[in-house]
Amino acid sequence: MKAKGYMGKILRVDLGSGKFDEEELTDKTAEDFIGGCGLGAKILYEETDAGTDPLGPDNLLIFAAGPVNGTKAFNSDRFDTVSKSPLTGIFAESNCGGYWGANFKKCGYDALVIRGRADTPVYIFIDDEQVLIKNAGHLWGRDTFETTAVLKVENGGSVRVAVIGQAGENLVRYANIISDGKHGRATGRCGLGAVMGSKNLKAVVVNGSRSVEIADEGRMTELTKKIAVMMEDGPEGLRSGGTAVGLDYCESVGNHPIKNWYQGSWPDGAKKLTGLTMAATKLVKKYHCGRCVINCGRVVKAVGGPYDGEEIAGPEYETLSLLGSNCLNDDLDSIIKANELCNRYGMDTISTGNCIGFAMEAYERGLLGKSDTDGLELVWGNGQAVIEMVERIGQRKGIGKLLGEGVKRASREIGGGSQEFAIEVKGLEPPGHDPRAHFTVALGYATSCRGACHLSAFTHDFEGGLSIKDLGSGELKERFQTDGRAENVYRMQNLMSMFDSLTFCKFILFGSGIAVQPLIDYLNCVTGWDIDHKAFFETGERIFNLKRLYNTRLGITRKDDTLPLRMLNHRKKGAPNELPPLNLMLSEYYEYRGWDEFGVPTPEKLKELGL
Amino acid sequence: MKAKGYMGKILRVDLGSGKFDEEELTDKTAEDFIGGCGLGAKILYEETDAGTDPLGPDNLLIFAAGPVNGTKAFNSDRFDTVSKSPLTGIFAESNCGGYWGANFKKCGYDALVIRGRADTPVYIFIDDEQVLIKNAGHLWGRDTFETTAVLKVENGGSVRVAVIGQAGENLVRYANIISDGKHGRATGRCGLGAVMGSKNLKAVVVNGSRSVEIADEGRMTELTKKIAVMMEDGPEGLRSGGTAVGLDYCESVGNHPIKNWYQGSWPDGAKKLTGLTMAATKLVKKYHCGRCVINCGRVVKAVGGPYDGEEIAGPEYETLSLLGSNCLNDDLDSIIKANELCNRYGMDTISTGNCIGFAMEAYERGLLGKSDTDGLELVWGNGQAVIEMVERIGQRKGIGKLLGEGVKRASREIGGGSQEFAIEVKGLEPPGHDPRAHFTVALGYATSCRGACHLSAFTHDFEGGLSIKDLGSGELKERFQTDGRAENVYRMQNLMSMFDSLTFCKFILFGSGIAVQPLIDYLNCVTGWDIDHKAFFETGERIFNLKRLYNTRLGITRKDDTLPLRMLNHRKKGAPNELPPLNLMLSEYYEYRGWDEFGVPTPEKLKELGL
Repeated sequence: MKAKGYMGKILRVDLGSGKFDEEELTDKTAEDFIGGCGLGAKILYEETDAGTDPLGPDNLLIFAAGPVNGTKAFNSDRFDTVSKSPLTGIFAESNCGGYWGANFKKCGYDALVIRGRADTPVYIFIDDEQVLIKNAGHLWGRDTFETTAVLKVENGGSVRVAVIGQAGENLVRYANIISDGKHGRATGRCGLGAVMGSKNLKAVVVNGSRSVEIADEGRMTELTKKIAVMMEDGPEGLRSGGTAVGLDYCESVGNHPIKNWYQGSWPDGAKKLTGLTMAATKLVKKYHCGRCVINCGRVVKAVGGPYDGEEIAGPEYETLSLLGSNCLNDDLDSIIKANELCNRYGMDTISTGNCIGFAMEAYERGLLGKSDTDGLELVWGNGQAVIEMVERIGQRKGIGKLLGEGVKRASREIGGGSQEFAIEVKGLEPPGHDPRAHFTVALGYATSCRGACHLSAFTHDFEGGLSIKDLGSGELKERFQTDGRAENVYRMQNLMSMFDSLTFCKFILFGSGIAVQPLIDYLNCVTGWDIDHKAFFETGERIFNLKRLYNTRLGITRKDDTLPLRMLNHRKKGAPNELPPLNLMLSEYYEYRGWDEFGVPTPEKLKELGL
Repeated sequence: MKAKGYMGKILRVDLGSGKFDEEELTDKTAEDFIGGCGLGAKILYEETDAGTDPLGPDNLLIFAAGPVNGTKAFNSDRFDTVSKSPLTGIFAESNCGGYWGANFKKCGYDALVIRGRADTPVYIFIDDEQVLIKNAGHLWGRDTFETTAVLKVENGGSVRVAVIGQAGENLVRYANIISDGKHGRATGRCGLGAVMGSKNLKAVVVNGSRSVEIADEGRMTELTKKIAVMMEDGPEGLRSGGTAVGLDYCESVGNHPIKNWYQGSWPDGAKKLTGLTMAATKLVKKYHCGRCVINCGRVVKAVGGPYDGEEIAGPEYETLSLLGSNCLNDDLDSIIKANELCNRYGMDTISTGNCIGFAMEAYERGLLGKSDTDGLELVWGNGQAVIEMVERIGQRKGIGKLLGEGVKRASREIGGGSQEFAIEVKGLEPPGHDPRAHFTVALGYATSCRGACHLSAFTHDFEGGLSIKDLGSGELKERFQTDGRAENVYRMQNLMSMFDSLTFCKFILFGSGIAVQPLIDYLNCVTGWDIDHKAFFETGERIFNLKRLYNTRLGITRKDDTLPLRMLNHRKKGAPNELPPLNLMLSEYYEYRGWDEFGVPTPEKLKELGL
């Protein structure tokens, strides 16, 4: 291994045998797949097969950093996780902020590959190159905040931890992994917390002190200064209002989930939940991930009333959308509480909110009754019921047992006609952006490798005033156009695959006048490579195709690249929105991708990409 | 039984035991369900259950006439057939023109209910009230034209026959029943020919000489004269060009299936297939059903070339659309030949054309190869291949075995991703009208009790210049509106349920300035009842609800009231078309219907309708 920016080693742990070993990360793998989700996808593709049970011992759980992580690059202390999803049964990836990624890498590894299942609860402690598998019997059953606190007492306050709560233990199919506890971050999506739970693995604790050697320190310093200027003015909204700063705007342009994605307009509710309202009424202070100058994290406190609690991480835009608007719940305090509980149990607020919205609609339609909910009034806008449902799902108690399976499985179980309002793509519930408000989002949700994902294409934010040089025009009027949108999604997906491989926070794109070139420059000055714009995007394309190939092996084709019925045939009232002509866009998209009409990568394209 | 216009008797035949008996038709049943599909639905609902196998001996095949059939009312010699469909597994109905209906009724019966399965091929001969079950061993394996000819030789030239061809014998799931041979008519849809085949029943031959007693002969004569004037100018297009007179118009407004419903525009092809072209180049003479003044039937001859043949019934609009445009086949002679073969084998040209279009797309995408087609080049526009496919399906030979199962089952078998272009609703392939060109058609297809049906709502013809007083505005611009369309479909479906119960030909609506009142007047002067406009529509609503209830018992709900993916998410290029906001319309529609949000009739509504 010669490339700078890498530690050059992959750590493998088999929890079944208790053995671990190190493997060299070759230059070729680094150049072809970078790190993060790219490296993870390569390992998962090669070392598992179509029959792997997501919750069985043969599934892999991969934590991977990229070349910029652990350096002084902005917004770069992140990591990525890759596995086969227990929620969707296909490719799973989830990216996480905080500090764990940089700290893990500084232990001396680019990736950690976990296989097997421990007989009893354990956690892994990586103290630089010293790896220990430790008993976690005393942690099992504890929530993520408590677990984090205990692990820091046991292993020293400087360690960084990634843990599961009771949701992961209970195999909630959208359980997540929480890094650094109550002011922490999550690998939110696809249920990787349940994969950890299935392996009897409560936590991965890291304590790294190595440094990341980079190729051109001088240029790195210059570059960081230059980007600092660009970041100064750009993300003002994120600074002042957090990720929810545009919630009321999203509502006004039809880009917001209301009442299980049915309702078009809810301005009074949106005003109560939007970021500036939260800043004015609940905010205690802001917080940030490693090497970030944005500070989008919120520390809030629900003062007075039934949900008065401690100062904790506040709900993000997605959380407010799904546990709030999607349930017609405009009680901000109840969302703060439900969010806290999701974080304690360790489960995805997006999937949770979709599941509760789905259940509320089923309740309204008489498919679920009080005998199913043990008397709970599961009606729209009942914030107390939202909180109670989070508890039940986390504990898999009563109706929570069913809803912990996700919308797709719950709908199959409930039957009757509930597929009509089961909102998911490839089994993954969507975040708070509506494909009927942005046709690129429609195409992005339909073709993302992990299901309904807003971060694989991330186009919605670049059609309403913002633009990325070379990629998005920033024109809101383009959102209902089809021409050129396939190309836009194609290019954005390739770029986002690079973001999640490097791994960078995508909010760096909100820097003033930001373009893609600074990221390429960062990569080059860390590694000493000389990658140009074209090669950078080609690498992203290679990574995206590899993820798709993993899904192709599982039978995923064009028929699966679709949207929920409600998004295909329900035009919302009172909001600007249109039904997306997905099929036309798909055909154009497949052409850009060099896939056949079924969405299967052609041999020519794979050869071109070296796959 | 006191009501005039009825024979007052239902004939039941059990082919298993060879026994038959007569049952009285009560006044209440006649008033509540009229006849035709209404009477058939009542019998099917009451005498079968959810577990009935469509191709098993317990399924019923019901032939039913209505009160106007056999009278001198215009366009009224028809009959209706009702059963459980082997294609869709749900309620099946199919209406048929010609002369059989009036002749059957004149035997002294309002309905014939066939149950059981004969050990060897038989046919039923009803000679007034004399009923015989006769050997059909010598007819088995013969096509419908030959069978008709032999039956007329055996039983006299004046008999009317309804027969199946080899497709029905071979249980092609969309086999039909052909009445009166080569210049005949068909109960085209839902595969009732296969139900006959499953019962070893080759034909039902009737020879009726009774007369239908009506309540007010004098008023009947006056009314008929009055309607004669209305019919004089109205259906000029149908007279001159047949049902295909508007094919090129349909193409130009996006209301036409091209290339398996993918392509938006095909003007040169449409010009070659449209009714006036056929009239100018292939027409020998016109023909008509009993008591019709329209003469929409075509007798054609493919002169010269490889398909030169006898003078036979020409293809209808639907046939030209599905065996023509939908396969990109602009060779009119090949369609005439394929249509003749469909009629000989006895199978639905709509389903056949959709199946071939589906297979051509599967072939283009490499899901079917030459090894599957025994070397046949199943490429778009290959008219010879269309003919060859009809032969194979009728004989269930090679690839025809699979395609004889219908698009839905074939797609499941082929898999891969072919669901994306499997065009069917509830298992029934659509006729040549596009839901993306008329939102009422979208709603009509989604909610018709038999699947993708253009005749249950019949709205498409009344949004482009024509209007029915009180029902349709005739404004083409309304076709992409959603407001008020649910009401329109609701009212039209109730009206069409009356048409198919009476039973009348729907083309009577093309009479100049025609309104609904003359039909009500006909019913009243035949029966002596005094039904007003409101009661007339309520009866239609009762009948429609009973069909829906039959489906509800089978688990049909809102989730099934949908459209093929291609119609929900593919906006065609080069044609005026929009993606239908089906869900919004469905919600409004269910409200009009008094059904719950799942599409299940409420107890209150059923009580109101006396169900």
